[in-house]
Amino acid sequence: MISPEWQELIAQKRAARDSYIPSAWRVPSQIMDKIHPEANLSAFDLLKESNLLTSREIEITESWDATALLGFLASAKISSLEVTAAFCKRAAIAQQLTNCLTEILFDKALDRARLLDEYLAREGKTMGPFHGLPISLKDTMMVKGEYATLGFVSYLKKPPAEENSVIVDMLLDAGAVLYVKTNVPQTLFICEGYNNVFGQTMNPHKLCLTPSGSSSGEGALVGFRGSVLGVGSDIGGSIRAPSLCCGAFGFKPTANRLPYAKQQALIPKGWPGIMPTLGPHATSARDLTLLFKSIVQGQPWVRDSTAQAVAWRDVPRKSKLRIGVWPSDPDFPVTPPVSRALASAVEKLKAAGHEVKLLTQPPSLKTAAILGGRSLDLDPDQSIFKILAEAGEEPIPALRELRPDELVSGREANLAEIWSINADKEDYREEWGRIWREEKLDVLLCPGGRTTAVPHGKYGVPAYTIIWNLLDFPSSVVPYLQADKSLDLPATENYDPVVVDKAPVGVQIVGWRFQDEEVLMATEVIAEVLAR
Amino acid sequence: MISPEWQELIAQKRAARDSYIPSAWRVPSQIMDKIHPEANLSAFDLLKESNLLTSREIEITESWDATALLGFLASAKISSLEVTAAFCKRAAIAQQLTNCLTEILFDKALDRARLLDEYLAREGKTMGPFHGLPISLKDTMMVKGEYATLGFVSYLKKPPAEENSVIVDMLLDAGAVLYVKTNVPQTLFICEGYNNVFGQTMNPHKLCLTPSGSSSGEGALVGFRGSVLGVGSDIGGSIRAPSLCCGAFGFKPTANRLPYAKQQALIPKGWPGIMPTLGPHATSARDLTLLFKSIVQGQPWVRDSTAQAVAWRDVPRKSKLRIGVWPSDPDFPVTPPVSRALASAVEKLKAAGHEVKLLTQPPSLKTAAILGGRSLDLDPDQSIFKILAEAGEEPIPALRELRPDELVSGREANLAEIWSINADKEDYREEWGRIWREEKLDVLLCPGGRTTAVPHGKYGVPAYTIIWNLLDFPSSVVPYLQADKSLDLPATENYDPVVVDKAPVGVQIVGWRFQDEEVLMATEVIAEVLAR
Repeated sequence: MISPEWQELIAQKRAARDSYIPSAWRVPSQIMDKIHPEANLSAFDLLKESNLLTSREIEITESWDATALLGFLASAKISSLEVTAAFCKRAAIAQQLTNCLTEILFDKALDRARLLDEYLAREGKTMGPFHGLPISLKDTMMVKGEYATLGFVSYLKKPPAEENSVIVDMLLDAGAVLYVKTNVPQTLFICEGYNNVFGQTMNPHKLCLTPSGSSSGEGALVGFRGSVLGVGSDIGGSIRAPSLCCGAFGFKPTANRLPYAKQQALIPKGWPGIMPTLGPHATSARDLTLLFKSIVQGQPWVRDSTAQAVAWRDVPRKSKLRIGVWPSDPDFPVTPPVSRALASAVEKLKAAGHEVKLLTQPPSLKTAAILGGRSLDLDPDQSIFKILAEAGEEPIPALRELRPDELVSGREANLAEIWSINADKEDYREEWGRIWREEKLDVLLCPGGRTTAVPHGKYGVPAYTIIWNLLDFPSSVVPYLQADKSLDLPATENYDPVVVDKAPVGVQIVGWRFQDEEVLMATEVIAEVLAR
Repeated sequence: MISPEWQELIAQKRAARDSYIPSAWRVPSQIMDKIHPEANLSAFDLLKESNLLTSREIEITESWDATALLGFLASAKISSLEVTAAFCKRAAIAQQLTNCLTEILFDKALDRARLLDEYLAREGKTMGPFHGLPISLKDTMMVKGEYATLGFVSYLKKPPAEENSVIVDMLLDAGAVLYVKTNVPQTLFICEGYNNVFGQTMNPHKLCLTPSGSSSGEGALVGFRGSVLGVGSDIGGSIRAPSLCCGAFGFKPTANRLPYAKQQALIPKGWPGIMPTLGPHATSARDLTLLFKSIVQGQPWVRDSTAQAVAWRDVPRKSKLRIGVWPSDPDFPVTPPVSRALASAVEKLKAAGHEVKLLTQPPSLKTAAILGGRSLDLDPDQSIFKILAEAGEEPIPALRELRPDELVSGREANLAEIWSINADKEDYREEWGRIWREEKLDVLLCPGGRTTAVPHGKYGVPAYTIIWNLLDFPSSVVPYLQADKSLDLPATENYDPVVVDKAPVGVQIVGWRFQDEEVLMATEVIAEVLAR
């Protein structure tokens, strides 16, 4: 039970956050009154209804991706101050409509934008590849002087960060403007958007649907274009699931190619399970490349001894990709919109001249889900639950339900289990290795999840994403089509075409470990085909 | 106790091996009679005395490195048959003088050489980067139809290999000639050269000294120039220690950059400790690059799902390296010849214009030795010792003495220990990270071992090499100078300048994880300076 003392701290935290939203940016109360996690409403419609954005602000936040904006910023066609102000305002509205933010840094962001505009005028050159661009951050990133509660009630008593996460230092050195931190679900180990500190983050496309998670706020914010570039983290789908559910692009690199050092405390040091990885949320495929490439070219391993010293490689764009297609696994059947999107993507890719190879005997996804579950179950101390208990928090239902007994039953977390996981993983990777080898795949195309966004609390086991964390294979998601209740039939016990109608759909693109460059190249190529 | 039945199998094995040495290549008995593991004799002197090699054979085996020989082979200036015959003969003599071989494949090698010569004549091009060159292999590599006993008595009953190790396939595809497999110490977990199947491998520079190990036979064979290029493996120093002790070059890459798949069974699958890695033994720095680069450019990850998909990078040669120098650790004091060689190397490098930076506060080597010991102690089943027990083998004294209680006492191999090792390793790596960062190091120069070669059984804990396995940092060794009883004083309880007189000395060059290319580049640069 969360005590009244903690409840008071929660109320103060929310009030403090909201106080950073200027009154001129407040969504009218007649709109705010309609917003709740069961509302069948689109944040885009509500934005229009609010009439808060000027046409210039709409143009800035909706017309371009980060790459285009950075071009304008570098050539001083548009000032960082104007871009930053527009995104601060749109993020403020996103917060009010979807509850996606944890920390608001608008004043600092606007100061920083002015400084960057002056720098460009004075020096005649940019500060770096992100010069003047507002970049959003998942709450786990530490920004000096700012909080990082991760939605843990007990973390409300943690002091503000004394130093930046390494990725934050690198973004700042490269000229980025930091303006918001974004929400996460309780413990970050579920693909949902609820925690007791900040409440429920909602999907901008339909408030009654989950944004998924754990980079829930990034998903909602970038999906709403309150940000065009954000940094999230992924240990089982936490970048890709919310990107897909919210209609955005996302990329989970090979672990530790982006610098993970100095994130807020979560898993104790020494964790032998699946390694989390940072990665971009974006509104275009090329922006995934932009973020990953710019950071890797900044040599993160020089600053972070946990980062892989694997340099960026330019890979030539292929006009004819060899794409393996894995449409669905029988143990985790995909819903009709997911299946339709993938089939449509395959047709378009074929028509565009790519070689598409349907996998006839793919390895079992259940094997990966079980191995993934076992690999996340290696903490006999249950450290994460201790953080909850410190403030009397109970696990939310979605967290309690996450690991069905069938996936991990009969296992004991001990040294023999690590040997067994390692051996099973090696065998399982080899099963995929044989396919990659025999089919000579550039990349694999598969679902990014069993479903589109579903009602809050119902996302379930992210089998189609955790498999690639287990294998440490880089993978991206590309939004494509949306659920259509007239096409995506039939309804079943676990699938209601009306409930998910208009939810974004997408596909996942997967490459071999360390072939991040190839995955990004293929993602750009495939996204272009799908956009035609 | 090894039973008479097993003793008989051992005798048969040795006789079978020796039967592959043609009588014309036999070392005269008056020389053979002098050979034993306490003999203060040089195999080079005995070779001369034997008068077995023609001047042409001496020229072929002593004048060039692999790179030069491959140039002659590719341009048909010299045939593979002539090169192969010369190295078979010299390897046969090496075997008789130092007992370095386990399997002899001369007939197949000569057939293969003929085939390659025909191929070149017919096709007008080489089969690949190793066209026609004899390459030696540590006994762990599987060659179809050949045995791989690893010196385990119980492995004498294993059938010959049914398929090649992946590295073997790649070498063959690249045109290599395989002609010998080389000896290892009991269990491969010590830097010595003795096992009950093949007996004692001796150091060619001085038979009474250890060749070190576990790539003992590679060290002795390449040190004797019975091979100019070999493949060994290293989990704690097993390539570098024998290379140094036998006056050769060696390189331990980042784990799994060379394909490890399908080695003979040793550590059971799933091992969570330090990962072993393959690497080259050579007679020049550029040959280390040659082997590593050629294999990595062959994309081992396409054949071996455990190999890192990290492509070869060309790194520009630096005329001015920034070299950190770590001369010695107080807990593992180096002997006078090691110290003198390092000091002399530093002077030469300074004189050649390189920036040399003495580390004033290096991390503790004892921390690494303890962590290394703990990381090799994660098998409660003691699988390695079970392999010995199967044939009644007792651990040899050097193996029993390897892990002093002080290094691992009070530890239990369990899940908590893995967390603890991981966390301690991360902290320890960060200690080195700070140094690399602050000193902006290209590479680190340090001892490759506490001593030169010492009497058999006395090599001890390879702290100066296992540290880089623990951290997974690529590291090479470069032979430089030799022990000199008139210079390397004073004698101490554990150091006798007369015993080690004339033993080869050398230095170790270390780079950050995955910076294999930088280490190889620096090794070439430094070796050139030291050769002046």
